[in-house]
Amino acid sequence: MKNKQWRLASRPVGEPTAENWELKVDDVPDIEEGQIKVKINYISLDPAMRGWMNDSKSYVKPVGIGDVMRAGAVGEVMESKSDHFTAGDHVYGSFGVQQYAVVGAEGVHKVDPNLAPLPRYLGVLGMPGMTAYFGLLKTGVPQKGETVVVSGAAGAVGSVVGQIARIKGCRVIGIAGGKEKCDYLIQELGFDAAIDYKNQDIKAALRDACPQGIDVYFDNVGGEILNTVLTHINFKARIVLCGAISQYNNTDGVKGPSNYLSLLVNRARMEGILVTDNTKHYGEAAKDMAGWLNGGQLKAKEHVESGIENFPDTFMMLFKGENFGKLVLKVEHDT
Amino acid sequence: MKNKQWRLASRPVGEPTAENWELKVDDVPDIEEGQIKVKINYISLDPAMRGWMNDSKSYVKPVGIGDVMRAGAVGEVMESKSDHFTAGDHVYGSFGVQQYAVVGAEGVHKVDPNLAPLPRYLGVLGMPGMTAYFGLLKTGVPQKGETVVVSGAAGAVGSVVGQIARIKGCRVIGIAGGKEKCDYLIQELGFDAAIDYKNQDIKAALRDACPQGIDVYFDNVGGEILNTVLTHINFKARIVLCGAISQYNNTDGVKGPSNYLSLLVNRARMEGILVTDNTKHYGEAAKDMAGWLNGGQLKAKEHVESGIENFPDTFMMLFKGENFGKLVLKVEHDT
Repeated sequence: MKNKQWRLASRPVGEPTAENWELKVDDVPDIEEGQIKVKINYISLDPAMRGWMNDSKSYVKPVGIGDVMRAGAVGEVMESKSDHFTAGDHVYGSFGVQQYAVVGAEGVHKVDPNLAPLPRYLGVLGMPGMTAYFGLLKTGVPQKGETVVVSGAAGAVGSVVGQIARIKGCRVIGIAGGKEKCDYLIQELGFDAAIDYKNQDIKAALRDACPQGIDVYFDNVGGEILNTVLTHINFKARIVLCGAISQYNNTDGVKGPSNYLSLLVNRARMEGILVTDNTKHYGEAAKDMAGWLNGGQLKAKEHVESGIENFPDTFMMLFKGENFGKLVLKVEHDT
Repeated sequence: MKNKQWRLASRPVGEPTAENWELKVDDVPDIEEGQIKVKINYISLDPAMRGWMNDSKSYVKPVGIGDVMRAGAVGEVMESKSDHFTAGDHVYGSFGVQQYAVVGAEGVHKVDPNLAPLPRYLGVLGMPGMTAYFGLLKTGVPQKGETVVVSGAAGAVGSVVGQIARIKGCRVIGIAGGKEKCDYLIQELGFDAAIDYKNQDIKAALRDACPQGIDVYFDNVGGEILNTVLTHINFKARIVLCGAISQYNNTDGVKGPSNYLSLLVNRARMEGILVTDNTKHYGEAAKDMAGWLNGGQLKAKEHVESGIENFPDTFMMLFKGENFGKLVLKVEHDT
């Protein structure tokens, strides 16, 4: 049984290119005591992966040169020498960009394909959903009637942030690229307004869409959008820093928000979040999320591409804003 | 009785110059019901005044062209038609850059020249002291054993921040300009270390002085110092934004902190403060501060310049780092 894997060949400078990746075909190793062998079905593609390719201190170790690229994924247990899993279980774990994984039980948990389609466990019911839930509610602390703005609003995290804010009784404005995504936010997800950053003047559009100013801004993009939002925040506003996808491929460094003194004028705060700080409370969040999904208040959308060979190009869709919903890669197997 | 006043003649672009000011000699108006007439003894010179000269939305209205420059001051009541004050009272208020003021009672409070010299009510016992107290304790929330870094550390606010942090059992590092100020921080105020930003490499010096990283940073300066501190912060660090004196006179805009994503990596926060949000609690703070002063744990230092004619040059000392301690202007009177 052969295992196609994408390994990190070199570290990108700016945009990742084909040279940064190596497609390797390896044997699937035998499993040892405590391990499981997983046939991977869907791989999660996330902006954070770009950061893991850099050789810099962060919240996790960089992926090593020559290592299989780190990625969350869902799959089926083929063989188990762990007390926690049996063959046939469906599981989520950090299985990497490959067809098969042999891993220990730590950090792996079961998912139920009868309750939701597998890709959903990489989106609303997975890390992006938890990121949105805890980032918005714990750090953004939106109050009923407040105005919440979210960027990357049609993406995996942003679409959930906006919907939860709407459920909590806020006025919700999404920033996304293109008319199709903006229409979707308003018509399908119930956002109050949407701003098309590719075709609108963000400053003027924010002023129109947020006549009462901005109380919470959930930032997935950084750069000029963050900087412009800062000019419209209210007294005691909260800015949740979740990501800065517009900056990850800059070759001349990250652009800092020159309007940051608006935090001083408005006694506002800007705070970074990481989903894994909340592992102890995932259960409560999952219960809320499942309730909202079942009640039709929360909608999920996945963007599925196919074929592990297509990983490098599919990954780049994130940075071009080409995915519409949570981006996952469906893995096919020869056997 | 004639009143020398400094009025705002035009708005500065970059550094204020002589052309932005007009020295006017006016009559002191008669007082009306509810008002007091004050002979001003000391005028407070603060970095925030630079912001009030700009025509931009902020936490207070800009000073109008032709208006007496806004400034906190202490003086003596000469005549009162207010129930709250009688002639001979010493008072603090926003009296402006002039020799005499006629104002209503609102925002004016008595100070006692027998308890402390008058200039102290513009420093440790005034706005800068309160700013340090609430900014550090309420927003910085330093815990015993944590590392606290403060910039502008020999200034009116910074010197108090560092001393309160020391009183609370923190390791305290001050950033200031020049050996004399740095020696003072360590030898007189009990800071654990001091960094001379004019003569040291800040990044290397911070690494040496903060082997356990930085838990709280109280920022008075912005610019490169803020940006460098961001590379050394700890998990859940708090950055208190109090000012950005390095940026106030920039003609090409404020420089944003390009390392702001360190807030994300470290799940840290950056939050703006303004002293006047705490007016209800000034009493408690003053009690603490007076206790520390009397116990010798908190030391005060004022830098007194003389002559209202010298206001424009004296004001510029703030931006050149030429003041050593709280900068005040002593007002002389012809009568």
